[in-house]
Amino acid sequence: MSQELEPLFKKMLGLGVDTLLVSDLHVIRWLTGFSGSNARVLLNRDHSALFTDFRYGEQVKHEVDAMESIVIQSSFIDTFVEGGYLLGKSLGIQSEQMTVYDAGQLGDRLTGVDIVPVHCFFDEFRELKNEREIAWMKQAAEISEKVFEEILPLISTRTTEAEIAAEISYRHKRYGAEKDSFDPIVASGTRSALPHAKPANETFSPGNLIVIDMGCICNGYASDQTRTVAFGRIADEARKIYEITREAQQLGIEAARPGLPAKELDALVRGYIDKSGYGEYFGHGLGHGVGVEVHEKPRLGKTSEDNLLSGSVFTIEPGIYLPGKFGVRIEDTVVMGESAVVPFQSFTKELIEL
Amino acid sequence: MSQELEPLFKKMLGLGVDTLLVSDLHVIRWLTGFSGSNARVLLNRDHSALFTDFRYGEQVKHEVDAMESIVIQSSFIDTFVEGGYLLGKSLGIQSEQMTVYDAGQLGDRLTGVDIVPVHCFFDEFRELKNEREIAWMKQAAEISEKVFEEILPLISTRTTEAEIAAEISYRHKRYGAEKDSFDPIVASGTRSALPHAKPANETFSPGNLIVIDMGCICNGYASDQTRTVAFGRIADEARKIYEITREAQQLGIEAARPGLPAKELDALVRGYIDKSGYGEYFGHGLGHGVGVEVHEKPRLGKTSEDNLLSGSVFTIEPGIYLPGKFGVRIEDTVVMGESAVVPFQSFTKELIEL
Repeated sequence: MSQELEPLFKKMLGLGVDTLLVSDLHVIRWLTGFSGSNARVLLNRDHSALFTDFRYGEQVKHEVDAMESIVIQSSFIDTFVEGGYLLGKSLGIQSEQMTVYDAGQLGDRLTGVDIVPVHCFFDEFRELKNEREIAWMKQAAEISEKVFEEILPLISTRTTEAEIAAEISYRHKRYGAEKDSFDPIVASGTRSALPHAKPANETFSPGNLIVIDMGCICNGYASDQTRTVAFGRIADEARKIYEITREAQQLGIEAARPGLPAKELDALVRGYIDKSGYGEYFGHGLGHGVGVEVHEKPRLGKTSEDNLLSGSVFTIEPGIYLPGKFGVRIEDTVVMGESAVVPFQSFTKELIEL
Repeated sequence: MSQELEPLFKKMLGLGVDTLLVSDLHVIRWLTGFSGSNARVLLNRDHSALFTDFRYGEQVKHEVDAMESIVIQSSFIDTFVEGGYLLGKSLGIQSEQMTVYDAGQLGDRLTGVDIVPVHCFFDEFRELKNEREIAWMKQAAEISEKVFEEILPLISTRTTEAEIAAEISYRHKRYGAEKDSFDPIVASGTRSALPHAKPANETFSPGNLIVIDMGCICNGYASDQTRTVAFGRIADEARKIYEITREAQQLGIEAARPGLPAKELDALVRGYIDKSGYGEYFGHGLGHGVGVEVHEKPRLGKTSEDNLLSGSVFTIEPGIYLPGKFGVRIEDTVVMGESAVVPFQSFTKELIEL
């Protein structure tokens, strides 16, 4: 483990940070495997430690072996300050995580210590997945694909979007996922034109597209996938935008290469949709990284500064949304290999007509 | 609405805050009804506004009528600063919500503006529930009680804790809840002695206690309840601590009065368990407030400074946990009336033997 932490210590050294206080639970899961809802980690080359409360006294023993674990008695800050756990003269804090109030408390209690705000310290490390992480993400994707296949036959004129969404969450857990990676989207009719529609308490009507965007979490790692299906016979224009979206998504998968700037892949796919006459109806970015969070680095969009690195995992999810009419989104999560990407999902992207 | 906001504006005036930037989504739900995952509110006596992004352009129209809603084009801070939305010379920020990074960005962009960190500004207002809020919380409690009744017969030597937890989440949604208010706890055997056990992939064995702690959300408001049941014939000591916990919880319900310091109610119930010989095995506070968050003011514990106010809603949930053996917790959520509390839950607290 100390071997794995070496690049972190090196970066800390460069920033003049002796000890780094980690307060982001996603980072703590990634770093230590701990899944409780209250934790702080102190990273220090000589002595790293995880702090949690009495509720997790047993759990932390099972989950964390990479560093010492400490069960706080009253508050973290009391244990931290009074226990003499601060090593060195400078304490880094996660500026995008720590609140103004907590930072103020630390400043008041730690006299003579230099508090150094660091921004998105872990992103570059989290972006590159190892084999174990990829295996867990595949497992999550497999569960979600199985669930997707099972819920399709449940869609009918007597079931509602909200009921299908509840079935998705339920089956994710029944197949061993920890939970959904986000609230499932089941959006039919005009709601399919809203990229983030909430499932409605309305039944399905024939002649509509249904966007189903879903994912789950296994061992702390997220999956994310979208398919759009037709319920009954759909309008010609719906079929047309389905095909354009499908071709655009395929183009994105085929064109992704290690080292390619993310905005170039976005531009390529966007250009294809543009040329087909629907450019103004693709209102969001092409995709996003996936890991212990369902949205992390890299970002795939017009203004992204990220490159697509070998070992990174991200979504490719173009969409076309015609307001008041219907919408299509098709999304796979892919892992970048040595020369190209491999999607985690294998479910067909040909139009399914229920 | 401006009438309802008057006490907030008065408090802002006292703190020297012309405009208050609200970044806590729970507060925004409480304040405006908006349920999207990205929002900021600017509170100002002359002009309040809610900011969200394009994903919620439709939703915000349906949900928010108390103030203007603005769909941001790029980032909130750009829209906020460049749009001239800041009224007055001083901007309050929620210090327990805003990150060090965001506060730094604001400071850099807003020259000549006094940024005033305010701490837990809304707690005192959120603590007192109106009739509509109480009705929503009752609705959430009713759904959870119905679900609890339904899942009891599913407990068997062939079902697992994780499966029962999945059933709870599923049925919450099927009965119209938005979602769970927290991940359900279904803890049997020695796990019942862990106050916050994760449901295991293990089947139930006869002769054990099962702690089931669950709640859901309706219209943004949470419910919270715990019952402990016996599966098969249990040990005499398990039965004994069940009865002590039940009596202690009943004592808490009967002794709660408006104006009583929360720590006195905690002390009374704790004293009863102490006198019964199990004081050291009740390791957490007596309860907590419930509202748009499942943990909010008041806090009921040894060191609480809160009083139990008429119109507040909180849990009464003593427990006895014998490590390595078994545990019991019994919890109702109650609303404080003019002279006493009324529990939302009506499910029996006599020991149920499955």
